[in-house]
Amino acid sequence: MSEQKKLSIISFSGDFDKLTAVFTLATGAAAVGYEVNIFFTFWGLDAIKLKQGRYPVGKGFLPKVFGVMMGGLRVAPVSRLNFLGISPKIFRYLMVKKNVATLEELVEAAKALGINFYACEMAMHILGLSKEDFVPEVKDVLGVASFLKLSEGGQTLFI
Amino acid sequence: MSEQKKLSIISFSGDFDKLTAVFTLATGAAAVGYEVNIFFTFWGLDAIKLKQGRYPVGKGFLPKVFGVMMGGLRVAPVSRLNFLGISPKIFRYLMVKKNVATLEELVEAAKALGINFYACEMAMHILGLSKEDFVPEVKDVLGVASFLKLSEGGQTLFI
Amino acid sequence: MSEQKKLSIISFSGDFDKLTAVFTLATGAAAVGYEVNIFFTFWGLDAIKLKQGRYPVGKGFLPKVFGVMMGGLRVAPVSRLNFLGISPKIFRYLMVKKNVATLEELVEAAKALGINFYACEMAMHILGLSKEDFVPEVKDVLGVASFLKLSEGGQTLFI
Repeated sequence: MSEQKKLSIISFSGDFDKLTAVFTLATGAAAVGYEVNIFFTFWGLDAIKLKQGRYPVGKGFLPKVFGVMMGGLRVAPVSRLNFLGISPKIFRYLMVKKNVATLEELVEAAKALGINFYACEMAMHILGLSKEDFVPEVKDVLGVASFLKLSEGGQTLFI
Repeated sequence: MSEQKKLSIISFSGDFDKLTAVFTLATGAAAVGYEVNIFFTFWGLDAIKLKQGRYPVGKGFLPKVFGVMMGGLRVAPVSRLNFLGISPKIFRYLMVKKNVATLEELVEAAKALGINFYACEMAMHILGLSKEDFVPEVKDVLGVASFLKLSEGGQTLFI
Repeated sequence: MSEQKKLSIISFSGDFDKLTAVFTLATGAAAVGYEVNIFFTFWGLDAIKLKQGRYPVGKGFLPKVFGVMMGGLRVAPVSRLNFLGISPKIFRYLMVKKNVATLEELVEAAKALGINFYACEMAMHILGLSKEDFVPEVKDVLGVASFLKLSEGGQTLFI
């Protein structure tokens, strides 16, 4: 009963709006004392790459092509009404104007709040990525079973 | 142990099919006695706007443009195979023909069943919306921490 | 306390990458002893159709058209950067090359591991589908209330 409350998020999407939701929920929960675990997989891995921008990260030709296509946080599209990348820029503009933390600031806040970042073993294997391709705050590379164990007893969201 | 069962949904998407999932799950749960909380955020806020249709709701030029682009429940697209808005019309037609509640009927049912509607503070701030822009059934405007507290001890879904 | 751990997934999406996430999580959980329930609804129903491929499954003209449009596992698109179906082929190629189970293999593994498949009553009704249109491993056709009851006390994800 006296256990710490826990929020675990499977961050699957690479969309600007969904990543904003991930980090808003995560930092909001951590700020009120929750243990927060984020498991980055598939497109979500893009959010924690060390080299942000359109770099050919990953081993092998095809993973490199995907790395360039994805391009990281700064060029992440919104999931709807993207208008060739204008919408994320407008959201960013509104977020700065309204003094709301931008996505990059939320990621920094998540690190500062000690939120646990985990990277998905299988997705990394498919995309030819290794732990060195990610920010040093990534605590561990995990499989599904380990993540489920970590998230037991708390709330878990798939975003 | 004798506590009431609880279902909490973060309604993030503005897509016709996902909103249908939100309200089908919510009303289904409420009908068998669950406490149901829906936290509308981002595109999901569109579902509870007072003025449905392509109105320039919100303060400031850009939020107004988004308000018109979004357009509310009646023009919500499906997340896949939308075909310029023909698919939602076909789904509506099939739902009426098969005597299944339409999305608007599900929203009304949710209100009648006393499901708790909450609006996301941060998203409203970014989009220049205030409580008056929403249906009166919106119980409160909440931040992440308050919503997490409300949803503790039940099942939580991100849709 | 000695209860079996439980993972329940609402499989809503018909996208290749999201279905891969569903079956990776499901088989990973089942492999370490979890009870796993998957509730297929909307586009997700496509994953458990008996006749895979672009068949006019379902009763009535419109459901048949959707059946052909959807087309099943082998032609499922990815949710982002689909490039007219080339991306899923590349992912498949990478998964085979890296010795990772493909989506079809994951589905077979799920059956072998005794994962419980359920089909959504309402979505089947709208799409004119009956239990005979699905693989025989589908245990039951359920409504929302029955699924919520099954998933109580475990973790539930909407994918």
